[in-house]
Amino acid sequence: MEWINDSNILIVGLGLMGGSYAKALKRMGYHVFAIDRDPESVEYALTNGIIDRGASEGGEELIKAADAIVVALYPSAVAGWISDNQKFFKPGIRITDVTGIKSAVVFDVLKILRKDVEFIAAHPMAGREVSGVKNSDDGMFKDANYIVVATPENTQDAIEWCKGLGRILGFKRICVLSPKEHDRVIAFVSQLTHCIAVSLMTCTDNEHLVDYTGDSFRDLTRIARINENMWTELFFMNKESLLREMNLFIDEFNSIRDLIEKEDAEGLKEKMRLSTKRRALFDKKQG
Amino acid sequence: MEWINDSNILIVGLGLMGGSYAKALKRMGYHVFAIDRDPESVEYALTNGIIDRGASEGGEELIKAADAIVVALYPSAVAGWISDNQKFFKPGIRITDVTGIKSAVVFDVLKILRKDVEFIAAHPMAGREVSGVKNSDDGMFKDANYIVVATPENTQDAIEWCKGLGRILGFKRICVLSPKEHDRVIAFVSQLTHCIAVSLMTCTDNEHLVDYTGDSFRDLTRIARINENMWTELFFMNKESLLREMNLFIDEFNSIRDLIEKEDAEGLKEKMRLSTKRRALFDKKQG
Repeated sequence: MEWINDSNILIVGLGLMGGSYAKALKRMGYHVFAIDRDPESVEYALTNGIIDRGASEGGEELIKAADAIVVALYPSAVAGWISDNQKFFKPGIRITDVTGIKSAVVFDVLKILRKDVEFIAAHPMAGREVSGVKNSDDGMFKDANYIVVATPENTQDAIEWCKGLGRILGFKRICVLSPKEHDRVIAFVSQLTHCIAVSLMTCTDNEHLVDYTGDSFRDLTRIARINENMWTELFFMNKESLLREMNLFIDEFNSIRDLIEKEDAEGLKEKMRLSTKRRALFDKKQG
Repeated sequence: MEWINDSNILIVGLGLMGGSYAKALKRMGYHVFAIDRDPESVEYALTNGIIDRGASEGGEELIKAADAIVVALYPSAVAGWISDNQKFFKPGIRITDVTGIKSAVVFDVLKILRKDVEFIAAHPMAGREVSGVKNSDDGMFKDANYIVVATPENTQDAIEWCKGLGRILGFKRICVLSPKEHDRVIAFVSQLTHCIAVSLMTCTDNEHLVDYTGDSFRDLTRIARINENMWTELFFMNKESLLREMNLFIDEFNSIRDLIEKEDAEGLKEKMRLSTKRRALFDKKQG
């Protein structure tokens, strides 16, 4: 199946991400189906024209009619859903996902997957501090990165198909990484930053500080509003990489603390110059 | 002197903050004078109508004509400038400053200050990742906090006068703290966050990650572009408070790391729920 406008795309899980995928795909002319165990989410999506057809139980008919499937469930639920429902899949279809960690998902799926079906993973690096289909918004893809996560078992056709989905959704940058590369990058740029933001909010009773915060504190803690069930899964399923990055960060933070304690001005300025130089590079690439 | 439009306000130091003060005061109809040792900054401000009169050396005439003075120098330079130049001050004028730490500045100033002159400190909690008068922009005050920092030696009139300046500059929220309270708050909401941002940029060679970053990493490192001379001063002059907050943060970050290492899901979710609840309060107050 290529990206032809009258194909049927099934989205499994109508949360923030599933709902946002649905909106973007519908806008581009696809027939969008959705399955979610919460009847209210399905009802909301139908009433608001976010999907064409939906089901909160059963849903075999929708699975049988799907030309492609996006599994937008929590990481721990992806392989199980595929295992339980692949008997209904059309022959030769492609499936993708949206999970934020990959090694722990992709290889479990590959172990149980029907041989005529291809699973090609993807990570849409976009989000909000709120959840649920009611908060879905495909505008969040506009300036964001989309990572296709391929294994040696993936065909070039499926990789291109998955990149095509990223373009249809409106992502700014699309790249391809292996599961291992992906998980190492994500441990640093996403998971470590969430650990820091949470620590900043919980390290001291700071509620009386709300009137004195500047932009810097607000920026560093925006992501401290966090879905505890999803992120606990993400952290545990990428534990090894995350702990490595956390240890690197702690060592560096401690060495900056020591420079301050010793009043080593030149050492501290050297750190700040390196930081400034590197961050300027990120600003440049953002434009 | 009250806030009457035809008063002469002297700004000492035409950097990002001094230039932004000048723009706001000029817009509101004041006569704005400036002294800066860099002739180019003075020339730029004169040519672009940011100030009415300026001097890069001498400047006694401007000091003698000033009805109020804003010292917008680095913290370590404030008391010295006042000591060297107060012989030119009009009798009974008020002086304020813009420095990001207070205990180490205010008490040094009080020790040497002429008895007929009143110094009332203030901290405009606004900034940019760039410096110099050319980048000045009084728009950055619009959603920001302005902290008047008073000691028992300050008169109520001077406190009200300083709050008035905050309103003229266009700050959203204005409050009053003691030097000690100010420095403790700032150590947490501003200095600790800058240490974290710098550590994130310097803990590992992350330049190859520029294509994979999402909003969270960009948000946490925006302030990692940092003026190393000013911030090294700010950190050292508030060392005791900053080290206390850094230690609190390290302890909390370590305990979150331990929860991940032990896969203590309930303990980690409890942290995330507290973090979410507290951060929601900050969002609410922002609106």
